[in-house]
Amino acid sequence: MAKPLTYAAAGVDTVTKDAFIDRLLVKMRATHGRQVVDLPWGFAGLYRLPGHPRELLVGCTDGVGTKLKIAFLTGKHDTVGIDLVAMSVNDLIVCGARPLFFLDYIATGRVDVRTLAAATAGIIEGCRRAGCALLGGETAEMPGFYPPGEYDMAGFATGLVDARRLIDGRKVRPGDAVLGIASSGLHSNGYSLARKVFFDRMGLTVRSRVRGLKRPLGLELLAPTRIYAKAIAALLARMGDRVRSIANITGGGMVENIPRVIPEGCAVEIEEGRWPVPPVFRAIQAGGGVPRDEMFRVFNMGVGMTVIVPARDADRACRVLRQAGERAGVIGRVVRGRREVRLLKCL
Amino acid sequence: MAKPLTYAAAGVDTVTKDAFIDRLLVKMRATHGRQVVDLPWGFAGLYRLPGHPRELLVGCTDGVGTKLKIAFLTGKHDTVGIDLVAMSVNDLIVCGARPLFFLDYIATGRVDVRTLAAATAGIIEGCRRAGCALLGGETAEMPGFYPPGEYDMAGFATGLVDARRLIDGRKVRPGDAVLGIASSGLHSNGYSLARKVFFDRMGLTVRSRVRGLKRPLGLELLAPTRIYAKAIAALLARMGDRVRSIANITGGGMVENIPRVIPEGCAVEIEEGRWPVPPVFRAIQAGGGVPRDEMFRVFNMGVGMTVIVPARDADRACRVLRQAGERAGVIGRVVRGRREVRLLKCL
Repeated sequence: MAKPLTYAAAGVDTVTKDAFIDRLLVKMRATHGRQVVDLPWGFAGLYRLPGHPRELLVGCTDGVGTKLKIAFLTGKHDTVGIDLVAMSVNDLIVCGARPLFFLDYIATGRVDVRTLAAATAGIIEGCRRAGCALLGGETAEMPGFYPPGEYDMAGFATGLVDARRLIDGRKVRPGDAVLGIASSGLHSNGYSLARKVFFDRMGLTVRSRVRGLKRPLGLELLAPTRIYAKAIAALLARMGDRVRSIANITGGGMVENIPRVIPEGCAVEIEEGRWPVPPVFRAIQAGGGVPRDEMFRVFNMGVGMTVIVPARDADRACRVLRQAGERAGVIGRVVRGRREVRLLKCL
Repeated sequence: MAKPLTYAAAGVDTVTKDAFIDRLLVKMRATHGRQVVDLPWGFAGLYRLPGHPRELLVGCTDGVGTKLKIAFLTGKHDTVGIDLVAMSVNDLIVCGARPLFFLDYIATGRVDVRTLAAATAGIIEGCRRAGCALLGGETAEMPGFYPPGEYDMAGFATGLVDARRLIDGRKVRPGDAVLGIASSGLHSNGYSLARKVFFDRMGLTVRSRVRGLKRPLGLELLAPTRIYAKAIAALLARMGDRVRSIANITGGGMVENIPRVIPEGCAVEIEEGRWPVPPVFRAIQAGGGVPRDEMFRVFNMGVGMTVIVPARDADRACRVLRQAGERAGVIGRVVRGRREVRLLKCL
């Protein structure tokens, strides 16, 4: 049997990256002053609005990563912009903020108007889904920087949250329920590993049909990241005082992202089998011989966002999320522990 | 004599890009709603702060462009971060806003901790010079996306301005004085043309000595973009009610950037010879046989920012800018005309 593929083998060394980020954070703090809210955890930076200390500006930035390669391979460029907005906006809303505006940066070697128009149409659609304004952007033409037909893109979202309604996980208690909101697929994480499995190891192309997948592989992999802004806004409007923690499940999966928004003394038990894992993850796992733990450490496995509420509010929260158009259900619970996620088999 | 080099010949087609941007702007407006201030001109997007309609959030994004190639060639990565902050912050301050926070996006094929630490140190230094907080950032490791040792970076600045103190050029009148604030060199624009002239046409390297330049060519080309945040803040604090227009002189030079912040019925006459053009521009012009008009359409030619004030306030404004550490002087005046810049020889 071939050597199981891991994320590091696919070219992404998260340990080196973590060490770098730690050093970066120390230096960043030197620029902060008193306006910046130094959260020990979280997904976004918070800045006290001058003159209005109860209101916090929230800033997030992210890109789409190597999911862009799928757009290059398929020639379909009108959905990665949705991913771009999703990546920043989903990070922003988990603290309770609402997104106000978005800016994009697209860099390419030579502007191909048709490609960039499609990419931009995606960004505009993403902003529509997020309910925020596309305030501006930069299209950088950098000759010799990107191969013909390729580009990179980065997004920036600014939001606002009332400091008294900030959701940071501090109130999470053992016994709380963990809800999962369904993802639409890989979202925008784990593509280096997914590409390695499908294209290098299995020898497939974006046009290949894979058992269990309804669409050609390229389209399956391009499924746009769900933007949870409107669902989370509905939840917070209806029962904001009950929501104790929200995590955006990006790179690192539930295993690494949920601990960012639970306090010391708490852990989370996730019960596998409580939600349907989309077939694309099964295909990656089987095709690459990827260990289950590694799958959960790289991919969202079908859960795009988690929400922690007191157990008695779980059903109502799920109803509100479903009314807002999401699939949602209880997938685990909070227990005593050391800020970790335990995966339980429950079949 | 060799064919004179122009920006288009160096691989950047600004006409195609302009057409693209026009189409983009129309689609963007669909996302705007009532919160966005639709300025017909300007350098930044403006968003009315919810609940505080007199206060406007300002968002800017930009990259460093192909100046990064000079960092790759020299192996010196600790100044392009200053450029990154400068590009967004200088766009932000020209409407009278003060920068609050900055976020960065760096994408690379494989994280080289030393290179990224240097790049980040530059960003932190840029934030220090701009007086804003580095609120967060994303380091995207994208295997197979960038050649070894290369990376791209994008920056995003958020600022705040009182709507009653917004500087948008509407009050500019014929007879007003145009002040120039000295640049530190090319800043972050025109590098595709500069590289073509120095490296392709003249056959130089980053280590070459060029007559008139005090440093090796690479270091000269890496001179960090000046960040005018503190000088403009000083000017606005002392005589904000006299400042009618500020333009950030980036790609397109004074010729294209000043018209963005003057009203219909006005034009600007710039008198060449009123300020010292740095030797690096002379070297590009001579080495590439670049026509003078093209030079002024691509480069800042030594003027990093222009400020328009009533003629009687010009001397005082220059004094304030000099006290804040900038070199500044009157370089032209506002006349009747059709939102254009006329270059006058005055030697």
